[in-house]
Amino acid sequence: MKVISKSILNEVITQRPPHSHKGNYGKVCLIGGNSQYGGAIILASQAAVHSGAGLVSVVTASKNHGSLHARLPEAMVIDWENRNKMCEGVNGASVVLIGPGLGLEEESLQRLKLVLSLLKQSQVCIIDGSAITLIAQYKIILPPGPMYIFTPHEKEWERLSGLPIGKQLLDENRRAKKEIDGVVVLKKHRTEVFFDDNVWQNPIGTPAMATGGMGDTLAGMIAGFSAQFQPIDQAVLAAVYLHSYIGEKIGENHYVVLPTKVIEEISLVMKQFETESKTGRLGT
Amino acid sequence: MKVISKSILNEVITQRPPHSHKGNYGKVCLIGGNSQYGGAIILASQAAVHSGAGLVSVVTASKNHGSLHARLPEAMVIDWENRNKMCEGVNGASVVLIGPGLGLEEESLQRLKLVLSLLKQSQVCIIDGSAITLIAQYKIILPPGPMYIFTPHEKEWERLSGLPIGKQLLDENRRAKKEIDGVVVLKKHRTEVFFDDNVWQNPIGTPAMATGGMGDTLAGMIAGFSAQFQPIDQAVLAAVYLHSYIGEKIGENHYVVLPTKVIEEISLVMKQFETESKTGRLGT
Amino acid sequence: MKVISKSILNEVITQRPPHSHKGNYGKVCLIGGNSQYGGAIILASQAAVHSGAGLVSVVTASKNHGSLHARLPEAMVIDWENRNKMCEGVNGASVVLIGPGLGLEEESLQRLKLVLSLLKQSQVCIIDGSAITLIAQYKIILPPGPMYIFTPHEKEWERLSGLPIGKQLLDENRRAKKEIDGVVVLKKHRTEVFFDDNVWQNPIGTPAMATGGMGDTLAGMIAGFSAQFQPIDQAVLAAVYLHSYIGEKIGENHYVVLPTKVIEEISLVMKQFETESKTGRLGT
Amino acid sequence: MKVISKSILNEVITQRPPHSHKGNYGKVCLIGGNSQYGGAIILASQAAVHSGAGLVSVVTASKNHGSLHARLPEAMVIDWENRNKMCEGVNGASVVLIGPGLGLEEESLQRLKLVLSLLKQSQVCIIDGSAITLIAQYKIILPPGPMYIFTPHEKEWERLSGLPIGKQLLDENRRAKKEIDGVVVLKKHRTEVFFDDNVWQNPIGTPAMATGGMGDTLAGMIAGFSAQFQPIDQAVLAAVYLHSYIGEKIGENHYVVLPTKVIEEISLVMKQFETESKTGRLGT
Repeated sequence: MKVISKSILNEVITQRPPHSHKGNYGKVCLIGGNSQYGGAIILASQAAVHSGAGLVSVVTASKNHGSLHARLPEAMVIDWENRNKMCEGVNGASVVLIGPGLGLEEESLQRLKLVLSLLKQSQVCIIDGSAITLIAQYKIILPPGPMYIFTPHEKEWERLSGLPIGKQLLDENRRAKKEIDGVVVLKKHRTEVFFDDNVWQNPIGTPAMATGGMGDTLAGMIAGFSAQFQPIDQAVLAAVYLHSYIGEKIGENHYVVLPTKVIEEISLVMKQFETESKTGRLGT
Repeated sequence: MKVISKSILNEVITQRPPHSHKGNYGKVCLIGGNSQYGGAIILASQAAVHSGAGLVSVVTASKNHGSLHARLPEAMVIDWENRNKMCEGVNGASVVLIGPGLGLEEESLQRLKLVLSLLKQSQVCIIDGSAITLIAQYKIILPPGPMYIFTPHEKEWERLSGLPIGKQLLDENRRAKKEIDGVVVLKKHRTEVFFDDNVWQNPIGTPAMATGGMGDTLAGMIAGFSAQFQPIDQAVLAAVYLHSYIGEKIGENHYVVLPTKVIEEISLVMKQFETESKTGRLGT
Repeated sequence: MKVISKSILNEVITQRPPHSHKGNYGKVCLIGGNSQYGGAIILASQAAVHSGAGLVSVVTASKNHGSLHARLPEAMVIDWENRNKMCEGVNGASVVLIGPGLGLEEESLQRLKLVLSLLKQSQVCIIDGSAITLIAQYKIILPPGPMYIFTPHEKEWERLSGLPIGKQLLDENRRAKKEIDGVVVLKKHRTEVFFDDNVWQNPIGTPAMATGGMGDTLAGMIAGFSAQFQPIDQAVLAAVYLHSYIGEKIGENHYVVLPTKVIEEISLVMKQFETESKTGRLGT
Repeated sequence: MKVISKSILNEVITQRPPHSHKGNYGKVCLIGGNSQYGGAIILASQAAVHSGAGLVSVVTASKNHGSLHARLPEAMVIDWENRNKMCEGVNGASVVLIGPGLGLEEESLQRLKLVLSLLKQSQVCIIDGSAITLIAQYKIILPPGPMYIFTPHEKEWERLSGLPIGKQLLDENRRAKKEIDGVVVLKKHRTEVFFDDNVWQNPIGTPAMATGGMGDTLAGMIAGFSAQFQPIDQAVLAAVYLHSYIGEKIGENHYVVLPTKVIEEISLVMKQFETESKTGRLGT
């Protein structure tokens, strides 16, 4: 198991080339936020915008639109009762994040299935929260093609992998990961990131971050980073590290680190690690 | 009568152990906020989250959901017209706070009765605001088992104890408290906290805190502290002291201390008093 | 014409006595904010709360409740379609402010008439914005008893007094004021305050404050000051001076002074002028 | 092609004369924000208010009113389903901005046509976002009289001018502009502003500003500046320069420059460039 080092931030967070526009920094579509868990999708969306995603669309229950815009006028909203608009949102995205506050209702399941059916090879799809539970519960087979990134916490990993929390040891996790087509970000005291061929451990973080909404925030940052930076594997590692790095920094003078505080720092801290643009880095 | 000293903060606010997750810091369910008093439950919820509660669910009128999420995406919301979801919210909680902005309508009474009927021995239940008035007015008998914490101001204490404000002297209060199964936090110029066997006085605070919503904020802090720290008696004393301590601090340069300002400081000030974790402090 | 001096702030803004509670600092009821002008009543309410009013209730269109609570959970809200609750709100207040964003519709007129019909001798009633225009337009006779404070800008004063803006000279204004039972705060470049026996001029202020919502903010500050400080005449002068004083201060480094910025400073600047409490100052 | 220099800010941003009121700083009416793109009109409105426009009215879908007021109580709102109120809003304005988040639906087209039909010679009309696309798509002829300012990005300019992005060279653009009655602000890496007789280039800006909502913010600033400063040509150049100037400043320590951060700085930075009022500058 390798250990993520701070240098990942310098490697990934490169200077934006001057001749670029918002389209160059990706289109993120987030799907989640039912009538009970609207806060989750708000936090994920804020994290994606503050990480630098070029354009952010949020597909969520209409009751969440007002509070989302009150916090984040930078995002666009789509009522998830509007199937056509929802399909448009997913189709137009370079990165799709589904799960924060999606819920476990029948409609949640149908929405998840719809989104999965729309995915294209060129897209990155991050699967978080309730979406992981639904996939485990209904043994949903993911359509091949897109790059998948799963972001389970230990209980969700138990559901997905079948490994009880007590048995989630490195080798068992590695074996379970082989069954899964996608990166697995296993969120825990020292978060581990499983790729096809290796595993990285995040050496930092603080228990002050153990509070509701922190995982949604990480998922949003991974979406934002995947939309801008390449290769995606590196982008994921950088987002994981940065999330904890900011948390530790805030935790130096806060007893609890709230997700909204983490979000406020993202762009400031990214700037500290920005390095000169490499030739040809820019996508299209 | 003993006097709470600042050292209560160091004793109670201990370092979080590294291997912990949000589940270790309690699940708080707040019930309140009718169509007129939504602000009360918003403030209480913010205070609980900023105090470090692991997960916070708010059962309130649906008209308050948008403003709550606009201020606090970290919380989950439940429409209190949805009886099933409401029961789920209460059942899943380690700490229940009922009362801020609950109102005195027939529905308020029914909601209070429902919540009381659901309580379990393992839960802490904080009874604030309108819930106190309803209990006094309808002579509601609390089901034995849970630990109760009442947070009346002097007028509410009059209703609950039968003691007119002018007769609320130490011995009378002590006697009245004996009739009540629970801790009583009597909010006033120098707040007093009545336990079964002793009484503590809060020596600090400022009249700059005499403004609407300050009591809701205290109730939310007590909920947040009860969810994380043990023993509960100590947690209550620490929350009471901290609330006034922050108020005094803000009052040094503000003529009036607004609840939202107090909330912003909670986590910062808690950090200043954090002490090393004691072995085995962590719950499950 | 006398000139208000900065010392008015020291005279009026006295230290709160230690044994006091929110009831001692007044109950303000604000009525306004139709479907178009909700921002006006939000600003007035924020100003009242930030000035230190003990309890603030806002009677407004229900569509404004969410945004009001998102900005100001410290306030209570009443839907102005609910006549009973509206009457309760007005009856329970020590200070009533009607007008910001009230509108000029038939319903606005009916609401104004209802509020006026409820007023009691012990109450202070501030009449602002559309309420002034309606009173002028429908030649409404105010019921004697309460203390009235009018806060017209020049165009509204023209409507109320019959004096065209070009003819609003000191003597003419003084004569017109005699017809009016109440204090008149004539808002303009150098705001003038007309009492029965004398006139005061505000010597400060800046054109950077010439922006929408600034008058609503002043009305809210007058309400907050009238709720806490006596005599009312002095309270009005202090609120007028403070409003401009803060505006000038912000205007030192802002090209335009937004009402929301003024509001954020109120409590901080009041503290700078706070003087020791005078014996017996506290009301009941 | 001339290059805009920083001195434009000193020339345009003159001190407000003391005897002035909000009416002297213009009435801006913004039309936009459908059910999906409410954030766009919120950002534009915030930018107009923070730039110093005297009075700001926002004609938008009613679902956006709450979030707009939660962010900006300084503005008034009009439901765009209410045709009468909408006409009143447009008629009463000195500056009209149509387009941010207007959408491309049939109703969007009808609203655009209605607004155009109401315009008067004395008004400035800024045409942004979807309004540009609609005009291009339906070959709408603008009624002569008002001063028009178009704010396309390169893709919108392609639609309006017929020039594919790759062929948008200076001479081609200049020729295409001749077909258009109005100023053209062509937003790109180094934004160009086309007047009838000359072209100005904005020499500053940063790719950190390449993020959703940044164009809406610029449109709102142009509206705010056009409402206050004359001649309009100069006001437009100053708004364009200031937008990028603030972006560069924020970009010094932020990896991505969010529109809401730009907005917060407008008034502060304007103050730094304020110069003494010229005689007779003030309109009526």
